[in-house]
Amino acid sequence: MSVLRKDPVSNGWVILAEERRAWQSDFILQPVVRQPGDNCPFCGGRESETPPEITAFRPPGSLPDTPGWSVRTIPNKYAALHIEGSLDRRGEGMFDQMNGIGAHEIIVEMPEHDGHMAYYSRHKMEEVLAMYIARYRDLLNDPRMRYIQIFRNYGTGAGASLDHPHSQLIALPITPRWVKEELMSALNYYRLKERCLFCDIVAQETRDRRRVVFENDGFVSIEPFASKFPFETWLFPKEHLHDFSMTSEDQLDDLAQALQRTLLAISQCLNDPPLNFIIHSAPRLADYDLRRVPDVTIEQDYHWHIEIFPRVTRIAGFEWGTGFYINPLSPEKAAEELRRAFDAYSSQILRAGPSAAKPSPPQQGLTE
Amino acid sequence: MSVLRKDPVSNGWVILAEERRAWQSDFILQPVVRQPGDNCPFCGGRESETPPEITAFRPPGSLPDTPGWSVRTIPNKYAALHIEGSLDRRGEGMFDQMNGIGAHEIIVEMPEHDGHMAYYSRHKMEEVLAMYIARYRDLLNDPRMRYIQIFRNYGTGAGASLDHPHSQLIALPITPRWVKEELMSALNYYRLKERCLFCDIVAQETRDRRRVVFENDGFVSIEPFASKFPFETWLFPKEHLHDFSMTSEDQLDDLAQALQRTLLAISQCLNDPPLNFIIHSAPRLADYDLRRVPDVTIEQDYHWHIEIFPRVTRIAGFEWGTGFYINPLSPEKAAEELRRAFDAYSSQILRAGPSAAKPSPPQQGLTE
Repeated sequence: MSVLRKDPVSNGWVILAEERRAWQSDFILQPVVRQPGDNCPFCGGRESETPPEITAFRPPGSLPDTPGWSVRTIPNKYAALHIEGSLDRRGEGMFDQMNGIGAHEIIVEMPEHDGHMAYYSRHKMEEVLAMYIARYRDLLNDPRMRYIQIFRNYGTGAGASLDHPHSQLIALPITPRWVKEELMSALNYYRLKERCLFCDIVAQETRDRRRVVFENDGFVSIEPFASKFPFETWLFPKEHLHDFSMTSEDQLDDLAQALQRTLLAISQCLNDPPLNFIIHSAPRLADYDLRRVPDVTIEQDYHWHIEIFPRVTRIAGFEWGTGFYINPLSPEKAAEELRRAFDAYSSQILRAGPSAAKPSPPQQGLTE
Repeated sequence: MSVLRKDPVSNGWVILAEERRAWQSDFILQPVVRQPGDNCPFCGGRESETPPEITAFRPPGSLPDTPGWSVRTIPNKYAALHIEGSLDRRGEGMFDQMNGIGAHEIIVEMPEHDGHMAYYSRHKMEEVLAMYIARYRDLLNDPRMRYIQIFRNYGTGAGASLDHPHSQLIALPITPRWVKEELMSALNYYRLKERCLFCDIVAQETRDRRRVVFENDGFVSIEPFASKFPFETWLFPKEHLHDFSMTSEDQLDDLAQALQRTLLAISQCLNDPPLNFIIHSAPRLADYDLRRVPDVTIEQDYHWHIEIFPRVTRIAGFEWGTGFYINPLSPEKAAEELRRAFDAYSSQILRAGPSAAKPSPPQQGLTE
């Protein structure tokens, strides 16, 4: 008997249909194939081949658009949105449109072409997260921007067009609809319970354990109760915080570890699949723009988190046509598989050192 | 300059970013590759290889599960939902679940393996639509079912696992979340205007013409103003009607023509792409279950339609993670391309007869 489960964040239902067939046959386990960096414009030394940099972490005295940087942010050459201009909201008969004002930036995570985020050192991961935060905070100053979305596409199967390790940032003059749904769910839950929905999820999951993938002092990653896709994974700060960019330096260390370990578990378990992750953080203007409720603020009821989607199943179009999903693998089993893969890798590393680990994907050792 | 457009049905915004790059390079134009029917359980003569049929259009006196049928409905052997049992709604801590009660049926459209819906005769298309309606009306009698979704996956790239021409029906004990959004949009619009949102879209589009793909007396297909994907196409009855299964016999003829012609335009324009379509019809209980408004009924404000999604771009995961879409092709250009492909095909057929048309995909002539 399959079951229907409801996601308290989106209020969408999913069908867990494990008996449908042996789960392996529903899956596409194609590891990401990476091209060599011969003509890669993101590689160190080719700074002149990209648009001029917005900012970079580089040694004191080093000039923009020269080598020596460790993380570098540039405008997306093929940007979907542009920073110059006014919004110019206007109608077209009954329809609404506005200019494509916004920001579309590329965060190049390292000068080297072959890095793999799941195997970053903790220091490298902290640097990348620090750049996320720096760009996020800078764009928060632009009053036209309502929502900032940082995301990462890994592998062509997940929509990446270049293999060089990079993330993307899009700043939007609107709040995406599913973010609005999250905000409304969070508000409704808070009004009912006077507690944060996400804090309650974290509390139940860390007690229950079955869906936990990785946990440290500050963060926990879980397979959500109503996972839309196999191995969908959410990463939460355990302490309530609405805005990703307010993560403290103390917390950054735990976040870097939790994100890297979670990605490592996925990479090991699923043979380096393509994946996407998206940081869900509070929109800047949500409290008075969207909800107009004087008694609850966005600081109280929203809780930032990261959603990770390994691309291991083919999505039938009706699923993104209706918001109604059939998942052939329970989150409990997915979490068990991920924990087992992580433990197997860790004990291999501990026994014999990084060189004993599987040669592909590129190994940079466990961060510690 | 890209533009942001708002879809009045979902209230989601999309970015039309045509300058992003030459649109062709963003596209995957891979025609559907079909396997021969050597072991196909849906083929005529292999009725014993499927679960026993639910119903079929067959000559008087012919027995179930024997050859001779023209359209045949069977339970999905790998059903995500099952018809027997009670819903048993229950909590798991803060979470909600229920049994996977519902129906999951396969509508086999013809005994022949090689048919292609875009090239069906009008009679064949009417038969298939009549079966949709018959199954829909039968399942409406089950009080556990809130929402019935009929959809079609064409090609493995669109999630089809068998090539034999078939559609699927899922009857659900819940209303999918995007359907709920549509219902709320329709209600809000009706309360503001005292008119149907969809009727207004049809009126504006048929006046404007730029986004119209095909039109006859009863139906019109358009590229929606805020298309999420290139060549996303919606087909509406011009006359207001909330429930697909109440389509009259008179209207069925026009519907068959409009759906076949629209699919033909897509097949010709995009080299027979994989695609999905979904029939959006009013849920059975929506009026008192979901909205509890005494002054507006679902008959007044909802308007059934079909949404068609050719699968010609790769979806970056963040798009279905956030409901925020970047579309590299405007609906105006898409409609122009579709009309041109349709006209080219029609004039070729008119000049030289069906045999002169492109040999692949399988041609069965224009319906007339």
